[in-house]
Order: sequence, then structure tokens, then C-alpha cells
Amino acid sequence: MTPDDTVLLDHGAGGRASHAMFSKMILPLFHNDALARQDDGAVYPVPAGRMAFSTDSYVVDPIFFCGGNIGDLAVNGTVNDIAMCGADPLYISVGLIIEEGLPLKDLQTVLQTMADAAARAGVKIVTGDTKVVPRGKADKLFINTSGVGMLFEGVDVSGSRARPGDKIILSGTMADHGIAILTAREGLTFEGDLKTDSAPLNHMVKAVLSSGCEVHVLRDPTRGGVGTTLNEIAGQSGVGMTVFEKDLPVKKQVNGVCELLGFDPLYIANEGKLIAIVPEQHAVQVLDIIRADEFGRDAAIIGEVTDQSVGKVFLQTAIGGRRLVDMLTGEQLPRIC
Amino acid sequence: MTPDDTVLLDHGAGGRASHAMFSKMILPLFHNDALARQDDGAVYPVPAGRMAFSTDSYVVDPIFFCGGNIGDLAVNGTVNDIAMCGADPLYISVGLIIEEGLPLKDLQTVLQTMADAAARAGVKIVTGDTKVVPRGKADKLFINTSGVGMLFEGVDVSGSRARPGDKIILSGTMADHGIAILTAREGLTFEGDLKTDSAPLNHMVKAVLSSGCEVHVLRDPTRGGVGTTLNEIAGQSGVGMTVFEKDLPVKKQVNGVCELLGFDPLYIANEGKLIAIVPEQHAVQVLDIIRADEFGRDAAIIGEVTDQSVGKVFLQTAIGGRRLVDMLTGEQLPRIC
Repeated sequence: MTPDDTVLLDHGAGGRASHAMFSKMILPLFHNDALARQDDGAVYPVPAGRMAFSTDSYVVDPIFFCGGNIGDLAVNGTVNDIAMCGADPLYISVGLIIEEGLPLKDLQTVLQTMADAAARAGVKIVTGDTKVVPRGKADKLFINTSGVGMLFEGVDVSGSRARPGDKIILSGTMADHGIAILTAREGLTFEGDLKTDSAPLNHMVKAVLSSGCEVHVLRDPTRGGVGTTLNEIAGQSGVGMTVFEKDLPVKKQVNGVCELLGFDPLYIANEGKLIAIVPEQHAVQVLDIIRADEFGRDAAIIGEVTDQSVGKVFLQTAIGGRRLVDMLTGEQLPRIC
Repeated sequence: MTPDDTVLLDHGAGGRASHAMFSKMILPLFHNDALARQDDGAVYPVPAGRMAFSTDSYVVDPIFFCGGNIGDLAVNGTVNDIAMCGADPLYISVGLIIEEGLPLKDLQTVLQTMADAAARAGVKIVTGDTKVVPRGKADKLFINTSGVGMLFEGVDVSGSRARPGDKIILSGTMADHGIAILTAREGLTFEGDLKTDSAPLNHMVKAVLSSGCEVHVLRDPTRGGVGTTLNEIAGQSGVGMTVFEKDLPVKKQVNGVCELLGFDPLYIANEGKLIAIVPEQHAVQVLDIIRADEFGRDAAIIGEVTDQSVGKVFLQTAIGGRRLVDMLTGEQLPRIC
């Protein structure tokens, strides 16, 4: 590989090389009016209302893995965080931190994947920033995405709104993303289809929120997994929760890898799943709407909110036992997203 | 130093340690309702209008330097990018990428500085994200900030709006930030006060834009310096520019260091300066408003926009010569911001 094929410090210096990279590699992929203006930020009209604003940095290792790469992970992740606020994601920013020497073709692939992910979610990448650090000062590529979106009218979802009697819906199988990264990182080969579940959930959320069904909580169980996310919500809402092991959707192969390596799928990251907590009378309808979405086919009602053991989550095991599901303690899988 | 005094991988895992760090170190400093909800994003009301959205990642080395640290740099940088869109910055997001082993007291200092900088600028830090990567996979601390703000009514500033006859105003001395970083990095000691100029410029911008004076372009000359920024604007606007060397404000000590080390202050980064390009009839009034701001005392009219040599910037030297000021080529100072 010649130096011409890799990212150089010059590409992050704000001078001629930076401008050439922006004009040749970035603008054509993400093309839109706001970005094309090349000003210090993007400007767009907003109606009066409520806006959601979220940010996430992605440091996943490796940057390419089965079913995706750091690029679609970064776009979908922020799209989903906005959607979980009860909002319609509109605009995304991209901050690249690149290690000197990254092959330009890898960067190109990631950027193309971001453009495709943005198109799929229906959001625009309107502003960005590129920094390059010397070799050894970062690991290939880190991406920050931030995003904004308008809240759907009348919607009030928050981790603090779970109420006793509510049903807990999970939109699909657990642990797919974490196990895909782990196997990619360790070079493990298993039979079957261990790929990330990274996906945009905004269309699913829009369908649920425009159905007239009441929704109390929306949250995507990423780092820390379903177990940690439910603990967060139980704490924020001051409620207890019971989850039924037999109802927890997990792919057979994923479960097998977890058993083999000693991981609990409840704590493994997901990147294309949501938890919806809804009043009992709306649960079946919301479940049906989620199942109708291409990313919600394996959705299930996995548990219920109680007024017992406030702040705690219990698992009703398949053999009839009951155990505490604590928040994740310690680092199970670093750099999972 | 014991492991208890440093950032661990656990702090970025999304589990118990992450939550403890957020509750104990972050929330008390940045406290506001949106952040306290601890949802996936912040939610806030917006009036109908136009919104600006900008992002920047900060990878400055070292993270502490004379006059500031990576924290206020990150807040002021995004505040300024929003202001340069002709907007009033309101909300900021913070994405931390931390190298395992960073002393917690360093993180605490940076976060405190961010909180102070946000208070000074009058913006709220409403949402954030923390990732921790293993030792050697990043360099101490990288920070992304994104921000949103509402445009002032009737304002239309853009790098594409410079017109022949306009005057070019620079709000103060050049190259202070870049030279502060360089001397901190190299452990150089010079007499005098070589400190960063990092500062929020939103109050200055508000004063200018609410004065009734017409403003065509606002831009902060960060990476690449005044020389590169003027080239960008000349290109975007399809105009030429002449800058008068005798009118360029540079601190004597900064100029001395530049001469000694062979740097041209025109290409060295600033973090608390803006370029305003305004119609001639408003230039003196805008200059006076900028000079009345605490960060604009050394402001000067440094040049003018022409219809000659479109896309090019010329320097009228002190001794009467004329030379082309090109865009920065090559990396002068990596990791300057």
C-alpha cells in the first residue's frame, strides 16, 4: 500500500488535503443542501414543537464484522436513540477520528455504509468533522454521531414512566450484536448466522406511536443488554419487574455461543432492538405493530411491571425458580459499540 | 496511583460503574432537567424558526495547556461554530472517548472546566455518552461536542455571501491557540504570556447581529488559521480578497515564537477569534461592537473583498509587496484542537 492509499495527518489539518477529502469522498456520498454549503454548521427550518437531541461515540473493535461495520452502527445507533425519545429522527452529524494509516478504501466503505444507513432510516447527514491522529494514538477509526428529531405530538415516553401492570415488550432476539462482535474479534467460527442486528428502529417507533396506543417507555438495550436496561428503567420509574425466561427471544446459535463461553444473553449488547413498556390493554396491539415491521418479527411480551421489590428486576426461570437480574457489573465485552 | 483513582474499562461498559460515574461525577456538574431524566436523548421545546446544528471532535495534545484544557476548548468550539451560523447556541452534547488509566482527577478537572465554559457561554449540556477503550487504543481523552441553536431572525450568514467591496474584520490577535499548544507540547518556555485564546464568541455575535448591521459572513479561523479560512470563503463566494499585513493583529511574543520556529501566524489555529465580512458602510460600527466585547478588544479591519483573482487571497505586505496567501498545504501542527 502506498501513502496515497491511506489516511494522512494532512487529511485532518483543515487545509488543502482536508478539503479535497471532503469534496471527493464525503460530499458526493452524503450530498444534501445543508452539507453542500460547507459552513461551520448546518441550518434547517424547524416547526414549533419538542425536539430530541442525542449523541453516541462508536469505538467498536473490529470496525468490520458480520452483518455490518462501524458506519451503519453509528448511524442506526443515533437514529434509534432519537426514536427512543418518541421522536422522528431528521438530521445526523458525523465526527470522524481517524488513525493515520487507515486504508482509504476502508474509510470509503464505512462512509458508503453510513450513506446507505442514513437513506434507509430516512435521515440526512448534514454536518461533520474529521480529525486525524498519528499512528498508535487511536485505533483505526472512531465515529461520533449526534442527531436531532422532532417529537411526535402528544407523546411522552421516558424511562421514568413505567407503571405497575404494564407489559414489557422486546422487539426481537437478544445478544445478536454482542456475539457477532465477539466472534469477529476472536476469529471464532461457528455454524449458522451470527451477525449483528444493527438496524434503524425509527419506522417501527413511528408506527407504534401513530397507532393511538399509549406507550410509557421506549429504550434500546445496547451496552449492558436487556438486563441492565430493565434495571435502569426500574430505578428511574420506581417500580419492580418480572421477566419470564421462557418468553425471552434468543437465536439458537447465539444461545449456544453464550453457553459455550459463559455469557448471559441478558447482558449482551443489541443494536437493533427496543424495549417498549405499555399499558396491558395496549400490549397485544403494540406487539402486532412491532411484529409487522421488518426488524420486529421475533418480538415478544417478555414480562411485566410490578409494585413489588421497587428498583429490582426478577427472572422467572423456565424451571419455575426466581432470580434477581442485577445491573451489569464489570466489563463483559469492551468496545462492543 | 491505585486503580480506584483511574478510569477503568468498566466505566464505559454501560453497567453499574458507568451509572455511578454519571451520577457522581457528571450529573452534579452539568445538572439540568433534560440530563437528569437520563433518557436516550434530551428533549426540549423549540419555537418555529431555523436551527443550526454543528459537531466537532477534539483530540488536542496535550489535554492541559496554558490558559485552558480540552474541556473548554470542546465547549467553546461548538458554541462558536453554532454562533458562526448566525445562531444563538442553546444545547450541547458531550461524547467522551477515554483511554483506560486516565486519572479520574484529570477527568474531573476537564468536566468541571466544561461545566464552567457552558455556564459562561450560557448553554446547557443536555446529553452525552462515555466510551472507554483499553490502554494504547486512544490517547488519554478525546471529546466530541455537538450543539444546536436557533438562528436570529432575518439573519443570513454564509461563507458564500462575501461580496466585492465588503470589509474583512478579524476579532483579535492571530495564532494564540496554536502557539500555546505547540509550546506546551514541546515543553518550550518563552517569556510572556503564550496562552490559548479559547473563548465563547456567541455573546459577541449576538451583539453584532442584533445591531441592525448587515453581516455577510461569520467564520472562526480554527485549524488552518486565518489564511485557510479566507481561502475557503473566497472559494465559496467566488470573490478575491486582499489582506493588509500591517493591519493583522498578532501578539508580539506570538510573532516572535513564529519567527523563531518558522511558522506563519496566518496558518496557525485560533480558538476564540472570528472573521466577520460586512458591507463597507457597516464595517466601522461592527468593528466597534466587536471591540466592546471582552474577547474582541484587539479587533481590526484586516482587508477587503474584491472582484479580482476570484478564489484567491493576496497579502499586501508591510513593505509594499503583494503575495499569494494559499490554503494550508500539509500538516503544520497535528492535534492542535
